[in-house]
Amino acid sequence: MRMLDLIEKKREGQALSTEEIHFFIDGYTRDQIPDYQVSALLMAIYFKGMTDQEISDLTMAMVDSGDTVDLSPIKGIKVDKHSTGGVGDKTSLIVGPLVAAAGVPVAKMSGRGLGHTGGTIDKLEAIPGFHIELSRDEFIEHVNTHKIAIVGQSGNLTPADKKLYALRDVTGTVASIPLIASSIMSKKIASGADSIVLDVKVGSGAFMKTLEDARRLAAEMVSIGKSLNRQTIAVLSDMNQPLGREVGNANEVREAIDVLKGQGEERLTEVCLTIASQMVVAGGIYKDVESAHEGLQELISSGQALEQFKTFVQAQGGDPAVIDDPSQLPEASQHIKFQTDQEGYVHSIDAEQVGLAAMLLGAGRQQKEDAIDYAVGITLLKKVGDPINIGDTLAVLHCQHPSVAEALEKLEAAYQISSQKPEEQPIIYDIIK
Amino acid sequence: MRMLDLIEKKREGQALSTEEIHFFIDGYTRDQIPDYQVSALLMAIYFKGMTDQEISDLTMAMVDSGDTVDLSPIKGIKVDKHSTGGVGDKTSLIVGPLVAAAGVPVAKMSGRGLGHTGGTIDKLEAIPGFHIELSRDEFIEHVNTHKIAIVGQSGNLTPADKKLYALRDVTGTVASIPLIASSIMSKKIASGADSIVLDVKVGSGAFMKTLEDARRLAAEMVSIGKSLNRQTIAVLSDMNQPLGREVGNANEVREAIDVLKGQGEERLTEVCLTIASQMVVAGGIYKDVESAHEGLQELISSGQALEQFKTFVQAQGGDPAVIDDPSQLPEASQHIKFQTDQEGYVHSIDAEQVGLAAMLLGAGRQQKEDAIDYAVGITLLKKVGDPINIGDTLAVLHCQHPSVAEALEKLEAAYQISSQKPEEQPIIYDIIK
Repeated sequence: MRMLDLIEKKREGQALSTEEIHFFIDGYTRDQIPDYQVSALLMAIYFKGMTDQEISDLTMAMVDSGDTVDLSPIKGIKVDKHSTGGVGDKTSLIVGPLVAAAGVPVAKMSGRGLGHTGGTIDKLEAIPGFHIELSRDEFIEHVNTHKIAIVGQSGNLTPADKKLYALRDVTGTVASIPLIASSIMSKKIASGADSIVLDVKVGSGAFMKTLEDARRLAAEMVSIGKSLNRQTIAVLSDMNQPLGREVGNANEVREAIDVLKGQGEERLTEVCLTIASQMVVAGGIYKDVESAHEGLQELISSGQALEQFKTFVQAQGGDPAVIDDPSQLPEASQHIKFQTDQEGYVHSIDAEQVGLAAMLLGAGRQQKEDAIDYAVGITLLKKVGDPINIGDTLAVLHCQHPSVAEALEKLEAAYQISSQKPEEQPIIYDIIK
Repeated sequence: MRMLDLIEKKREGQALSTEEIHFFIDGYTRDQIPDYQVSALLMAIYFKGMTDQEISDLTMAMVDSGDTVDLSPIKGIKVDKHSTGGVGDKTSLIVGPLVAAAGVPVAKMSGRGLGHTGGTIDKLEAIPGFHIELSRDEFIEHVNTHKIAIVGQSGNLTPADKKLYALRDVTGTVASIPLIASSIMSKKIASGADSIVLDVKVGSGAFMKTLEDARRLAAEMVSIGKSLNRQTIAVLSDMNQPLGREVGNANEVREAIDVLKGQGEERLTEVCLTIASQMVVAGGIYKDVESAHEGLQELISSGQALEQFKTFVQAQGGDPAVIDDPSQLPEASQHIKFQTDQEGYVHSIDAEQVGLAAMLLGAGRQQKEDAIDYAVGITLLKKVGDPINIGDTLAVLHCQHPSVAEALEKLEAAYQISSQKPEEQPIIYDIIK
């Protein structure tokens, strides 16, 4: 088999066979196929796409390229959750304890990654004492004992995906639905999940800008899941403005606590309940999403969900006092108001710009080695549809130094004000299974 | 400037600016841009094409990547000729002496290359004593004295093209018209030509399989020439069967001598006269191609063209006796007939298969370091349209050992016999200027 033939075959729009895809992934993982041939193939895939069979083969080839996690010592159906990412997306912090409280075992491996804020484990590390290093046995035991554990990715999971992703990142081949779908699904499958609930974000602040693209990606991932015998459900949710009111690491933990207390923003709460409902149904705890939704709300109002969060935090070394008193979370030294000189309604908030503002304050990483400041972030006091008057504070910057001109510029660019109240956008667009 | 942005721009079908193209070519030549980014860009170019401006910029960027040849010490208008390549293509051997005899200075740098037979300089080296190494001064002096010199490429001409071509070859991005056009034209321009006559081959044995593709390539190259102030003319000629009757190195020299004697195959002679006519008009010797055609025929029938060939061969150390007695050229030890058991007409001869057969006999190189056997080759006694009877010899293999089963298989595959005489195909399809 020759890599050149595979490139030409794909370039002509033909499907690669299972053997050909394994040849390519195995060869690339072992450094036997050079980057320059792989990037040419990736660009051909960008233009010519892949069949469902090819995508499922690619997913399994990437799973087979490294270790896989065996979650069978954990009782119950293991349901994992994945978000395609957005600004202010703290759903994992909320959904994890919530579904654990309902009885679904949550054995989650999460990443740090680059971005506007840290990843889920960075946010959790904003809690004093919290650590994400558990041995494999501790991880299993934590889940069996406390129903939930969230750790950093360890072991050599999907090395082919890591190598491919790094190459895609510098060759303009990230934005390919078959490649995105197989990348996400390979990681979830290698992590040992029985069922997978995907939160596919749609809108200006998401990777998928249009509902059409988001549907295609969702359908592709559901199809991969089916072909590999993992029940997979995709929730399509809005990312045309940041999710919730808080962006930042400690900020987002604070907001997660609010939601678990039943005091969260309505749209954020709704996304979390929708995803969690799908998870607890997939986990066999509830028969249907309606009763699940009701049951989960009850877990919130009874305080059990928050209690579960506290147990989880404590089990991984975190200070449980912050749950009762979130003011003990890291707090920035300065709070600078972003005020408006307009009046009318908030028409839109470009999530991308808000994210960049948060990154400028130090909430995220541009390079892998960058340090995160857990305390900094942005609180959005006004969101889309809110009426505003001249002089109103739209947002507050939590920062460590007063020179935030650049971040304020981003917020200026993010907020669009209109004289008429904008039409309300749904928070959930669709559920694909 | 970032290479990633260029890749994404091209991927979205946008045109790269002059600065961007120079950035890419300069960076790649200096090893500052990695192969994997270049191959991704090449694949994007394959799918999205390039504008005339981009192709002309790419050509000049490749010219500027290395040395250029200054032919100004040579009197007269320097007209170069280039063929896109085919099987049995010995036109340079014929056209060079012919236009030199007419008074056009021929200062040709030629390649060896890989293929079914050697390149022009390999064929010339089949002549005992002929050498292709001349210093720059000798080269100029030869052309000024003898009107013609053909040498191997020396100096560091278009290193960017060499590097790009090597990468295209292994990444499925050879067959892109903008890339082919700029590659050819950069070499011709770096070689110092004032005017360029291109022989664009069309058909099953050519790189361009369809007249439509050949026209696009021709138009592209003519357009590059125009934008860079080099008069450029493209002749579109047939390569649906091998050109002439001889394939191989000494074989093709023998046939070139036949044509220069006025005893060549009609179609081969016609291609040579057509190309040469364009060259002598571009060189300012004749006013129009009709009078040029007539004048060139006269140079053949008077023996002046053959005499010019002899002078040229002798000037570069070759034995002029072979011109009078071609049997002194290297001759293979064995001659094996390829006979038919069918009757009817030769319907087609797949040039590709004939070329492979010649390569199997040792006439060409598969790898750069392979040695060529000048003596081996194939003589096609029957060509398309010829009537045949059972037992007729269609071709003769000139070979050094009797085990030629594989080569015979290729010939078997090449010859298609039909009961009806096929329609005659033109030898010249079009001339684009």
